[in-house]
Formats: sequence, structure tokens, C-alpha cells
Amino acid sequence: MSKIFDEVLAANKSYVAAFDKGHLPMPPGRHFAILTCMDARLDPAKYAGLSEGDAHVIRNAGGRASDDAIRSLVISYKLLGTREWFVIHHTDCGMETFTQEIMRDLLRKSLKAAQFGESGWSDVGQGEGHPAGDFINWLTIQEQSESVCADVQHIRSHPLVPQDIPIYGLIYDVKTGKLIEVPEAMQIGRAG
Amino acid sequence: MSKIFDEVLAANKSYVAAFDKGHLPMPPGRHFAILTCMDARLDPAKYAGLSEGDAHVIRNAGGRASDDAIRSLVISYKLLGTREWFVIHHTDCGMETFTQEIMRDLLRKSLKAAQFGESGWSDVGQGEGHPAGDFINWLTIQEQSESVCADVQHIRSHPLVPQDIPIYGLIYDVKTGKLIEVPEAMQIGRAG
Repeated sequence: MSKIFDEVLAANKSYVAAFDKGHLPMPPGRHFAILTCMDARLDPAKYAGLSEGDAHVIRNAGGRASDDAIRSLVISYKLLGTREWFVIHHTDCGMETFTQEIMRDLLRKSLKAAQFGESGWSDVGQGEGHPAGDFINWLTIQEQSESVCADVQHIRSHPLVPQDIPIYGLIYDVKTGKLIEVPEAMQIGRAG
Repeated sequence: MSKIFDEVLAANKSYVAAFDKGHLPMPPGRHFAILTCMDARLDPAKYAGLSEGDAHVIRNAGGRASDDAIRSLVISYKLLGTREWFVIHHTDCGMETFTQEIMRDLLRKSLKAAQFGESGWSDVGQGEGHPAGDFINWLTIQEQSESVCADVQHIRSHPLVPQDIPIYGLIYDVKTGKLIEVPEAMQIGRAG
């Protein structure tokens, strides 16, 4: 097995040795959910003060309100009783470095990892590409407060989302660790 | 604003006061990604030993290999250089407590939170329902090692996923904190 695999299992062994959370119930104790980006620099438990058992955390590339994020949020509320939702995008997001067209083009050329240089993304030219990326909406971001507003709006207007759930829209600053409210998104997400 | 909102911002203030991670680069330093469940009891950073900057974390209801999880994984590898992926489902998952049909029926009856009792899920009868749930695949789980195998298989056979990325399939035990390998999934996910 790989070095990373061994490291993860070794870290898990230490976690198990000190584990005292085996009694926690399934529904989140603090009744809320966070939708945020998969970015490695973000640790929602740390930046929002969560302990095990507190809140649902949904993460994807960009922290976008994709169909799958909506699926998760509806389950979170309908079956597991969360009553407030946070949508948290962040500064310096990878989703701002490319467009739908760039990603599709890169994947058509090669499936291997691309490189980011002064003129943007380029393929290193190994191997075969595939056109399947043409059928995926990559949900890229142009500007963070715009994407937060769009996603809060999308969730707010979804037919399966009750009007009395407040949806908070914020941006996490990767340079400072700070959560910053997006006033327009906060307005859009207000419970009705 | 709500009590929860104030608590999250207060916790964030403490995080910012001790923050020393402002220098981290965008690509994950340890070049791997974890796909796991949104369940509140799971803290992937803790159970797998991650610091800020180490690894991408993708989470949804069940930790399923949905289209959106695939979107995130492909971006994670193609643009941000992760080279190994973990798929981690868990014991006592909420996704095992219902079926596609139960969820659709609950949502048709009411959008409000349902209750779980001795005879399973039931609606408390308030408000209006909506049929939009009929058009969503809720990605429920019958048995965890089966769902891990299915998801590792789905990612392994996706046309945009290079064969040289190993995909590890594991189950997290919420009673002990332990990560347990699923041998069949490990086999399916081997790099080719």
C-alpha cells in the first residue's frame, strides 16, 4: 500500500486510541449544516467551531449548490432536523482559475494532470483525452460574492426547501481564516 | 441573527486570532482526496490526521460517488494534482434508514421535517408537500460494504478517471472511530 495510505491509517489509530464519541446520536446536535468547498486549506470544523456530532458538512469543488448538494441539504433538514444552513465559498478558489471551455478542452487533450503557468492552464500532453467532460457542468466561479448569491438564491428557490430555513451566505478568507458575510446573499437567504 | 449564527462567528473569531495558515498554496500538499459522508459525527481531518492544506475533502449525504463528487474528484486530480483517493462510508448511516420511495412519499406529503419512530419514518403532517423529490435519485444505502464497492467501481470505470489513480474503499465505525478496509473495494480500486 502507499505511504499516504499508511499515514492515514496510522493517524486513525491515534484517533481511535483517544476516541470518546461513540455515544453520539445520528441527528446533528446543533441542528445546522454547512455547504463549503473541498479546498484543502479549509477546515470547517476549525473555522466554524464544530465538534463531532454538531453539524452536517457538505463539500464539493467550489462549495456549489449542485443538484447533489441540494439532495444532501434536503435529507439534512427533512430527515435529520437541521434548521439553518451556511453556504461558504472562499478567496483564492481553484474554481476561479478556469472556465467550462478550458476544462473541457484540457480533458479532450489528456486525462493526466494539467499545469498552471503564466498563460493559464495547459496540458503536459501525455496520454489520451476524452470528450466526456463536455457533458459536465464544471460549476466554475467568476467572482465569489456573485457565486455565493447565486447559490443561496438557487437553494432559496428550490421547491423542496421550506421558506422558514435561513440560509447564510459567507466568504472564507484563506489569508486570515476569517468568515465574511455577503450582505446581498444574507438578504436573499432570509427565512420567509 | 440566530444564536447558531452568532456562535459560529464567535468561534471563527477565536480561530482567526490564532491563525497561522495564510501562506498555504492552493494544491493539496499531501496530494490526496477523501470522499466521505456529511454525517455530523465524522470529522475527516481528525479521523484521517489532516492539517489545513493537506488534502481535498468532498462530502455529501452518504459519501456517494454522485455526478457532483465525480466532478470534484476530476478537478482535484486534473487541476490540483491529487494522486490517491479514499471513499469512506460509515456505520449507522442515515442513508440506510430509508428508500427512494419512502423519501419521495414523505416529500409529497410535506416539506417539513419527518419523524423516525418504531415503524420507520413518518410525516408530522404540517404544510404542503411537493413532487419534485420524484425526480431526484436519493442515493440511499442498503449495506455499507456494498455501497463502498459500488462507488469505488463507479469512479474506477469513469471515462475521465485515469487508471493509475488508486481508489481506497473503507468504512468508518462511528462507535470506535476506526477506519476499516473493505477488501473487495480495495481490490476494485487498485491502480491499473
